[in-house]
Amino acid sequence: MPLTVPVASPWLAPFDGSLTREQLVTAPPEDAPGKKSCRKAREALVEELAELQHTLYADDRYSVLLVFQASDAAGKDGTIRAVLSGVNPAGVAVHPFKAPTPHELDHDYLWRTSKALPARGRIGVFNRSYYEEVLVVRVHPEYLGGQRLPRGIDALGADAFWDERMESIRDHEKHLARNGTIVLKFWLNVSADEQARRLLRRIDDPSRNWKFNSGDVTERDFRDAYQDAFVDAVNRTSAPHAPWYVIPADFKPYMRLQVADIIVRTLRGLDLRYPELGGKERASLAAMRAKLVADLGEDPADG
Amino acid sequence: MPLTVPVASPWLAPFDGSLTREQLVTAPPEDAPGKKSCRKAREALVEELAELQHTLYADDRYSVLLVFQASDAAGKDGTIRAVLSGVNPAGVAVHPFKAPTPHELDHDYLWRTSKALPARGRIGVFNRSYYEEVLVVRVHPEYLGGQRLPRGIDALGADAFWDERMESIRDHEKHLARNGTIVLKFWLNVSADEQARRLLRRIDDPSRNWKFNSGDVTERDFRDAYQDAFVDAVNRTSAPHAPWYVIPADFKPYMRLQVADIIVRTLRGLDLRYPELGGKERASLAAMRAKLVADLGEDPADG
Repeated sequence: MPLTVPVASPWLAPFDGSLTREQLVTAPPEDAPGKKSCRKAREALVEELAELQHTLYADDRYSVLLVFQASDAAGKDGTIRAVLSGVNPAGVAVHPFKAPTPHELDHDYLWRTSKALPARGRIGVFNRSYYEEVLVVRVHPEYLGGQRLPRGIDALGADAFWDERMESIRDHEKHLARNGTIVLKFWLNVSADEQARRLLRRIDDPSRNWKFNSGDVTERDFRDAYQDAFVDAVNRTSAPHAPWYVIPADFKPYMRLQVADIIVRTLRGLDLRYPELGGKERASLAAMRAKLVADLGEDPADG
Repeated sequence: MPLTVPVASPWLAPFDGSLTREQLVTAPPEDAPGKKSCRKAREALVEELAELQHTLYADDRYSVLLVFQASDAAGKDGTIRAVLSGVNPAGVAVHPFKAPTPHELDHDYLWRTSKALPARGRIGVFNRSYYEEVLVVRVHPEYLGGQRLPRGIDALGADAFWDERMESIRDHEKHLARNGTIVLKFWLNVSADEQARRLLRRIDDPSRNWKFNSGDVTERDFRDAYQDAFVDAVNRTSAPHAPWYVIPADFKPYMRLQVADIIVRTLRGLDLRYPELGGKERASLAAMRAKLVADLGEDPADG
């Protein structure tokens, strides 16, 4: 029984594990609005999101966790900026998770992200997340060495090992949902060609050079393995209480609009409300009011 | 498949959920050693524990989590002191979990303990733990109000609600065990009469007054509910990878010896070893040695 029903979207992954690579779409639909219309629609949604976050905070029962996963240059940073800028920063925290530090590797792989989970009333954004543990680590199982597991992939066999990881992640998200966290997961899926174009721009445009990382190019050789790992992770962890949305990422304005739209519609679906005062609290407010009016010697409401 | 087989002990709780209140024992066995013998045996074990922790640290694959739960005055603090003093403090961290702060209540109930989990090579001690969430909170469900759950006990019904909590805890411990944490859980079980005697001593002995808390006396009215909650929690969360040991707590020297003995025998059972260097690292060590000898102008090993 999820806290909320996942909002309908052509990009909502199925919950029965039936997603296939053939179904993946990277281009926007033919009838998608143009750049300007996408932007305008998104801006209206961001304004609404700011209001909704305010109510989320006053309501003080839910927290929201937005997980972003994508291959390099798919547009995670830009999407987070475009969708969350405008929301009171006191109510949002963005956490990027890069390669784990030695200190983080000394803990179980949910430790570093668990510490960063959003408090009630807040939106937490994970730019990459514990899903790296079944994506990049799955494509490069040699990275497991850093985790020094006493019973690792060699002892268990690959199938059982990844089964256990997927189960740990499902269990973790179930626990979060039970305790009031709305979990939304976005896979921004860019085509190999569009990714190449964007990486070339980072090389050719000096103002973008700082974003270029040669690792992004070499990882392209593993695209097939990454896509397989993504589809498997989505199939095994998409659930009504923690849905995946697989968003076509080749046309950024459309992608950003979709993300904003899904978040806003999800929050709209919650029974958010300003807490109502009980009779006792109301009486106490009235007494405080009387005291302030007496202090002031007049009631401003009378003016 | 646990990382280690739970060590045999008359106090190891069964894994099939068959523990009953009638089986609970608070007095030591008739053939238990006396105070002095218990103490001596414990001191030898503490020395060995210090060695074992050193190897645990060098081995760098396992971490150890010791969970202590008990009713008031059962002797948690004294046991932790008696068993862990002597181990290098750099390798141990004790975390007491009292009533959650407002900041902690703004997160799911595993958040505050998860942050404090021991790193690889370390022993972490939880003086009370996430089990409070199915013990004191179960006895006093009104405390759930502070958690502001959007779908709480009223919506789910008590049975489903506590089922979910127990499942979250089981899942959490399974995840920890998979990632190299040895979880040992101790319930120090004191009789109502012995507890009354100890609380009276806290009142009558001025040097113990600081330990007295009137809440400890009023909670005695709920002893039946606490014992039921304890037995149910043990039955639903005792597993080979996270065993419960229910230790009779009326005679402190025996209790402390039992706890030390279980911890030491568990660590002995691990395949702890100093990491061995590969050929390349050995060659690098030899080269570094030659350089230091050259810097020094002589080889101290020749002396």
